[in-house]
Amino acid sequence: MLGECLVRVRQKAPLIHCINNYVTANDVANLLLACGARPAMADDPAETAEITAISAGFCLNLGTLDSRKVPGMLESGKTANRLGIPAVLDPVGAGSSRLRTQTAHSLLESVRFAAIRGNISEIRTIAFGNGHTQGVDAAAADVSDKLDAAILSAKEQAKKLGTILAITGTVDLVTDGQRCFVIRNGRPEMSRITGTGCQLSALTAAFLAANPESPLQAAAAAVCTMGLAGELAAKRMKPEDGNIACRGYLIDAVYNMTGEMLEKGANFEIR
Amino acid sequence: MLGECLVRVRQKAPLIHCINNYVTANDVANLLLACGARPAMADDPAETAEITAISAGFCLNLGTLDSRKVPGMLESGKTANRLGIPAVLDPVGAGSSRLRTQTAHSLLESVRFAAIRGNISEIRTIAFGNGHTQGVDAAAADVSDKLDAAILSAKEQAKKLGTILAITGTVDLVTDGQRCFVIRNGRPEMSRITGTGCQLSALTAAFLAANPESPLQAAAAAVCTMGLAGELAAKRMKPEDGNIACRGYLIDAVYNMTGEMLEKGANFEIR
Amino acid sequence: MLGECLVRVRQKAPLIHCINNYVTANDVANLLLACGARPAMADDPAETAEITAISAGFCLNLGTLDSRKVPGMLESGKTANRLGIPAVLDPVGAGSSRLRTQTAHSLLESVRFAAIRGNISEIRTIAFGNGHTQGVDAAAADVSDKLDAAILSAKEQAKKLGTILAITGTVDLVTDGQRCFVIRNGRPEMSRITGTGCQLSALTAAFLAANPESPLQAAAAAVCTMGLAGELAAKRMKPEDGNIACRGYLIDAVYNMTGEMLEKGANFEIR
Repeated sequence: MLGECLVRVRQKAPLIHCINNYVTANDVANLLLACGARPAMADDPAETAEITAISAGFCLNLGTLDSRKVPGMLESGKTANRLGIPAVLDPVGAGSSRLRTQTAHSLLESVRFAAIRGNISEIRTIAFGNGHTQGVDAAAADVSDKLDAAILSAKEQAKKLGTILAITGTVDLVTDGQRCFVIRNGRPEMSRITGTGCQLSALTAAFLAANPESPLQAAAAAVCTMGLAGELAAKRMKPEDGNIACRGYLIDAVYNMTGEMLEKGANFEIR
Repeated sequence: MLGECLVRVRQKAPLIHCINNYVTANDVANLLLACGARPAMADDPAETAEITAISAGFCLNLGTLDSRKVPGMLESGKTANRLGIPAVLDPVGAGSSRLRTQTAHSLLESVRFAAIRGNISEIRTIAFGNGHTQGVDAAAADVSDKLDAAILSAKEQAKKLGTILAITGTVDLVTDGQRCFVIRNGRPEMSRITGTGCQLSALTAAFLAANPESPLQAAAAAVCTMGLAGELAAKRMKPEDGNIACRGYLIDAVYNMTGEMLEKGANFEIR
Repeated sequence: MLGECLVRVRQKAPLIHCINNYVTANDVANLLLACGARPAMADDPAETAEITAISAGFCLNLGTLDSRKVPGMLESGKTANRLGIPAVLDPVGAGSSRLRTQTAHSLLESVRFAAIRGNISEIRTIAFGNGHTQGVDAAAADVSDKLDAAILSAKEQAKKLGTILAITGTVDLVTDGQRCFVIRNGRPEMSRITGTGCQLSALTAAFLAANPESPLQAAAAAVCTMGLAGELAAKRMKPEDGNIACRGYLIDAVYNMTGEMLEKGANFEIR
């Protein structure tokens, strides 16, 4: 089931337009190439909507946010909506500054996102305005250790926002408000690599673009792909390896992942 | 012959000013260091011409184009021309938006480029305005499988643009309008790595800067260096390796390449 | 002594706000994660002071300087000063353009830096206005081979600037004007990797943030950590490896470095 979602990405090779922060843009582009998609990076308001229009998916990332580029973000989002191109939002650092929080809110007012991916603190900020974001890490106060309550809350937030939510952390939750994939792939080493979240958001856009019939499944498949790649990467690590080796192993694991591998390695339940 | 071009880059260690997109800037800087050159990255119109003026070569890349920075691009190009510093243009994504296409054209009106490197679609767009660019990949419709016609067309375009053209694809063509190097180095894996084109453009600027007497040969040597490095990288790949490993092997192959290795490994004919 | 400084970084996991150039931002973020700190990257004047305010350290890097972002740099610097957050300046390329030199000077007029890290040419430019910077490499004319004179001069410059200076080169000098750590860690291979200087500046901010009681020692520990990591990286290099492999080994060596390793490997004298 999830394996087929990956196979379709490789078959369709969707062009994914990313407005991405400059910290992780290279890794995001290489991760998209690794999964079989093709990246297009453009963020000037003078061209961004045109680039969205020729793409199959759109991923909007708020890291290193430049206020001058917000009008182009809105234009691209509206263009994606008009043309039926799935748009993904990664609200990096929402809650850590007024600019980020307000930009996230104004995007949500004007653009319908097929999926939003963030940590629990970022998602709470955009859903309820009460997250406690510090930098790009989920603040400890926001991490719920009660799974049932977390699932219920995720579903509520997805309904409220009218989108698929992918809330990533120790356990990942992917929900459209009705069903919730509870995903236990991934490794703690991934939090020591910059940009694994950004990469996953772009990957989600690629999976949504290639699997328009089953968006919830597609988003869950993207999350499982990233988590499984993290597991394979951690297994390859030698004693002298650190986060840079792990970063490379992770993207290379996506490069070599087959639908069958994903099918077998995906570790989830549906609630 | 081509090997000496590389040796001269290592001897002269030219400072290469790059106005580069933020996606591949790190790889470009490391590739320049790998070949023995030194990178300088600056794109603010308030300083860009000054940085060009202290450099031995200039490379202008249109990826993640920022319209606010176009005046600085023009200033740098004119400064390079005035001081006899070779300027290379990489028209990333020309044809995919009006901003990119118009910027490429306005640069061509004001600046004399020693070389332009792009895929066939980008080159056709700037030569004839009729390419079909989608993202940064050559659109299939533009790929000619008839080599003789492709060579003839490349020569015509080089004459029309008054520059050396390096048109990279399955087979690479490097021509000044009179002679054409037909180069068969390189590996398909390179198209799965973001930024190999950007790296080659900067490498071309380094080779031109260090070999002012023989620009066509210098540009061909840069293309062969990159392609040969791709071959060496592909040979090092282990089953678990993917595009990130290949990216590292490629730059490291340039780091370790000698003039002799290039001389032996360069696979070309002159037409 | 120095080992404890590293241990405290890992214990406190300080959030480090970086205004960093886009060439090396990814490496800087991963290096901060490798040492146990957490990166926050934001440079828009509309949010930069807010991000500084929630951070434990601040690192300001002038590479790929964007004049539009200078007001935010000043705001962040003043905010850091007001809240007692250590601020580090990396005057990349000071002396190579009026914009860089003037920006460095206007920052020094308004902001008190806990430490400034640069090569001898950059430091002389900001201290005396008479450096000879070419690109980001120390111009040969500025390299003193007379150690005693270099130490004396470094101390004078530190006093003049009222800060800790970390002047990195073949031998590294770290001084507060009274005492000077003369550090002989490091390897020549590091100069073939883009961004090792930027990484060290951010690392210095992390060490200062975690060791407020002993800033000179903290800055010296950061310089020794980076140099020792370079030595460990060079030892791991295989014949086919180049600067990309070395870059990864270096960050991974920081990831795996213990306080004990640093204590044993730090190679310095105090003058």
